[in-house]
Amino acid sequence: MHARHIIGFDIGGTKSTVLLGNTDGVIIDRISAPTELADGPLATVGRMITDARTLVKRNNLQLEEVEGVGIVCGGPLDPKTGVVLSPPNLPGWDEVPVVDIVKAELSLPAGLENDADSCALAEYFFGAGKGKNNVVSFTWGTGIGSGMVLNGKLYSGTNGSAGEIGHITYRENGRLCGCGKRGCIEAHGSGSSMVRVMQERLERGEHSSLSAADKVDGKGICDAARAGDQLANDVLKDAARAMGRAVAVAAQILNPEVITLGTMAYKAPDLLMPIVHQVVEEEVWLGNRSNLTVIPSPLEDSIQDLSAIAAYMGRM
Amino acid sequence: MHARHIIGFDIGGTKSTVLLGNTDGVIIDRISAPTELADGPLATVGRMITDARTLVKRNNLQLEEVEGVGIVCGGPLDPKTGVVLSPPNLPGWDEVPVVDIVKAELSLPAGLENDADSCALAEYFFGAGKGKNNVVSFTWGTGIGSGMVLNGKLYSGTNGSAGEIGHITYRENGRLCGCGKRGCIEAHGSGSSMVRVMQERLERGEHSSLSAADKVDGKGICDAARAGDQLANDVLKDAARAMGRAVAVAAQILNPEVITLGTMAYKAPDLLMPIVHQVVEEEVWLGNRSNLTVIPSPLEDSIQDLSAIAAYMGRM
Repeated sequence: MHARHIIGFDIGGTKSTVLLGNTDGVIIDRISAPTELADGPLATVGRMITDARTLVKRNNLQLEEVEGVGIVCGGPLDPKTGVVLSPPNLPGWDEVPVVDIVKAELSLPAGLENDADSCALAEYFFGAGKGKNNVVSFTWGTGIGSGMVLNGKLYSGTNGSAGEIGHITYRENGRLCGCGKRGCIEAHGSGSSMVRVMQERLERGEHSSLSAADKVDGKGICDAARAGDQLANDVLKDAARAMGRAVAVAAQILNPEVITLGTMAYKAPDLLMPIVHQVVEEEVWLGNRSNLTVIPSPLEDSIQDLSAIAAYMGRM
Repeated sequence: MHARHIIGFDIGGTKSTVLLGNTDGVIIDRISAPTELADGPLATVGRMITDARTLVKRNNLQLEEVEGVGIVCGGPLDPKTGVVLSPPNLPGWDEVPVVDIVKAELSLPAGLENDADSCALAEYFFGAGKGKNNVVSFTWGTGIGSGMVLNGKLYSGTNGSAGEIGHITYRENGRLCGCGKRGCIEAHGSGSSMVRVMQERLERGEHSSLSAADKVDGKGICDAARAGDQLANDVLKDAARAMGRAVAVAAQILNPEVITLGTMAYKAPDLLMPIVHQVVEEEVWLGNRSNLTVIPSPLEDSIQDLSAIAAYMGRM
């Protein structure tokens, strides 16, 4: 079947991008600009609508040749009404009816999904989930989020809050999580938790090649671990085990065909994936893992653009 | 709409029951008999087919007035092919094509589901899930199992193994579970685990009104707890907290409208539900619990019969 054109809006806290792509997952053109939070949401959405027209025109298309607009944004938001509901990364974006605005201005159907759900759809349409029915995709960076396609449909729960595997309890009375609870998987397994754990252990005087470093970050920890640093390896292993638990829980409860892992997994698969796979082997029943693939997202950084396209396609 | 007649087959390890019911969840008549494992599966299925004809006849119906047959049985089984695959409670039932046999003999469509999935369907059609889209139902007795209806459809995973929330890790290096893993929710929260924990603590010489009891069972522990026995209360609380974790995980990941709890919850709601609700409050985000009801199954023991009817209705 001929690929149809889709416009994507990727609204982020620092920059926002408008994409022209198609249903084959090809990104044809894009315009990116800073998100000026001080000017309010309507300024950004207005600028993006103008950019969408520019993209269509400079690629010798008419708006009528575009099938629809996919909009991706941090949650909370309501995909049913198409309203953005005060995401923490977009201060001032309170009850913004972004779908209605886009529909009215561009006369095209539009769909809004949060980033975790859009990533799951991108994986399902273009990545490791292509041709599968049951797909779970994890973001693994600053935080740990997940989205799921079950029986070939996005499943986002009763009020769009499904997939919070990053915020189930991993360790009772464990580390304080950004969400306010203690011991969440995210508080032990995310990239930022890993960096904080490393900093704390260095401050406690534990020996490491990073003791003298000006600044500790994820890449530094990975480099040190590869060079044989024991503390860096321990810290990485603890984070990967927490992420492994999230994967194991998803496998036991959802019995999917594929589980993909985001940023950290494809930046350092050599260090992290063996540990994740080990936890899966320890904690998942054979029947729930014999048909299961657990891999870093093959889409890597391109998932960001593709998820905006997929946010529209998920409506079809 | 007029209720349609459904025949239910409930195949258990000790007894098997044939039911005549309808799509309103009314059980009209039933015939129950021991499951003679020594005679093999065909003897039992053959007897049930005869009983089905008897039920139809003695209620002045024709087989043509029955819409279909729902079959429920312990897993593993394959709902797609309708084959029972060596369930541990039915030794000798290896690759039994029960759906094909029933179809051929009764000339009626038939559907096969495992007990956890059938219970979820019964809750969805007749119980606390009526009129809801997203329903999770837990069995809570000898073991802890779960079934789920998501977006109004049974979700049972890629190879029918979804819902194993009872076998996610609750406590690292915790109690040995019947499944072979350590620290599963079931190993800490099921009725039989609770009894074993009580026995162990009594053997260790902990003080309790049950110290002199000939035999410890779930009812005895509940009675002692109600009479103020501290150890019994502690043991119940630990089990309920483990079950609470299962509920919290389901709420965070699946964001359902209703979660029902089986046997233990409706036998001792006074002792168990406050603790379950407390864990939910501690571990579930407000957005995931503000529209959530967590209750003992209102169907209570009748869920057994209704789940056989629901096993057929889930196909529609």
